[in-house]
Amino acid sequence: MAKRMIQVCLTPKLFNLYSDKKSIVVVVDVLRATSSMCIAFEKGVKKIIPVSKVEEALEFKSYNGDYILAAERNGKPVKSFDFGNSPQLYLNMDVKGRTVVMTTTNGTKSINIAKKDHDVIVGSFLNLDAIAKWLIQKDRDVIIFCAGWKDKFNLEDTLFAGALATKLLASNLYDNSCDSCQASQFLWEKAKGDLFGFLENSSHRKRLHKLDIDSDVHFCLQLNQTKKIPFLKDNALIAIE
Amino acid sequence: MAKRMIQVCLTPKLFNLYSDKKSIVVVVDVLRATSSMCIAFEKGVKKIIPVSKVEEALEFKSYNGDYILAAERNGKPVKSFDFGNSPQLYLNMDVKGRTVVMTTTNGTKSINIAKKDHDVIVGSFLNLDAIAKWLIQKDRDVIIFCAGWKDKFNLEDTLFAGALATKLLASNLYDNSCDSCQASQFLWEKAKGDLFGFLENSSHRKRLHKLDIDSDVHFCLQLNQTKKIPFLKDNALIAIE
Repeated sequence: MAKRMIQVCLTPKLFNLYSDKKSIVVVVDVLRATSSMCIAFEKGVKKIIPVSKVEEALEFKSYNGDYILAAERNGKPVKSFDFGNSPQLYLNMDVKGRTVVMTTTNGTKSINIAKKDHDVIVGSFLNLDAIAKWLIQKDRDVIIFCAGWKDKFNLEDTLFAGALATKLLASNLYDNSCDSCQASQFLWEKAKGDLFGFLENSSHRKRLHKLDIDSDVHFCLQLNQTKKIPFLKDNALIAIE
Repeated sequence: MAKRMIQVCLTPKLFNLYSDKKSIVVVVDVLRATSSMCIAFEKGVKKIIPVSKVEEALEFKSYNGDYILAAERNGKPVKSFDFGNSPQLYLNMDVKGRTVVMTTTNGTKSINIAKKDHDVIVGSFLNLDAIAKWLIQKDRDVIIFCAGWKDKFNLEDTLFAGALATKLLASNLYDNSCDSCQASQFLWEKAKGDLFGFLENSSHRKRLHKLDIDSDVHFCLQLNQTKKIPFLKDNALIAIE
């Protein structure tokens, strides 16, 4: 039987080279958009509407005052929004049944690029095993779409791609002929024993360190804290398991 | 003293994110364009004119019948051209003092993208130490520009980027804050003991294997076979040492 393909797209600027109108796309922005999404659903959020622009998020709020607005630009929360991009904000508030409208520098942009021609789910280290299991059951080609940083490659999303690819390939159902997939696996193999240490010198780790949010980095690098899989349906993410 | 920057651009499609109108750009297309260029100069070629299109190469030949035409598309020589893209073609022919007009799928395209705003040199494993030494003397910011494969990431050019970055960083003159630079160094560290084996499953290695030119791959993965550095001047490469 022909094997399924795994491809790793290292930045949004390259996505059109991988888009094939049939693969399932796993969007990942480990620090911190997709980690926040996963934990939001774990804490009971009902729906997340990913939007590309701050103005769009504000427009949603004007329709429905109950929406939680979460917005980040350049690593910082956007002024006057309820939430920034920290996953830990969802831990100590009652968000059960709420809808979040979220816009971030890279993650929500990538979701909106991928959704045009693909089924989209959201991945992070927090739901790694759950999505690996789900994808293997689906038996379809997969594109792991790293959100990167402003269209550039980043290490943390590539590590996640390597972790997920390694799990999928262990099933023996997938072909491993994509160079960026192979590179991400090597990097994951090197890093997996100490993700925080491996990312010590990475550009976004330094950016977040300056903003004094190292604890978010630690939080986002935990494996398998939830079985929720954010799945895009009618332009909004809902949780499946 | 502020350190110099090293950035690694993983594919031509990302180059505009790195272009800064001041860095020296090292263009690399290990398999096989830039390896061929390095060995051509070692064997006495006087000038290489990199052009983007097959038609342009033919036009050059119509001006001057002495020009050697070298053209590759999709790994194969272009029909009716003197040379394809194999570096080993330069070994057994007298090419002293000749001018080569060259067009390849990725390498010459990348040179022509970079030259608009940058000084350009050409790198390969064959002249690795020579360019590292030359760059350190120049004391300028560096962009290592991987030609990739049709705008996608490839392993072999990224390994070269890692090798060169590792050498430059050992001088302690350069800052290492670029994520793709760090990733390329990790990959080089993993691969350097057995480059051929590491690339066993890479996409271009497979592509060339199908074309039965494994010996070219072995040739291109040799370190330091020449001290010649192809340098772009007035739209043509000349050799400096």
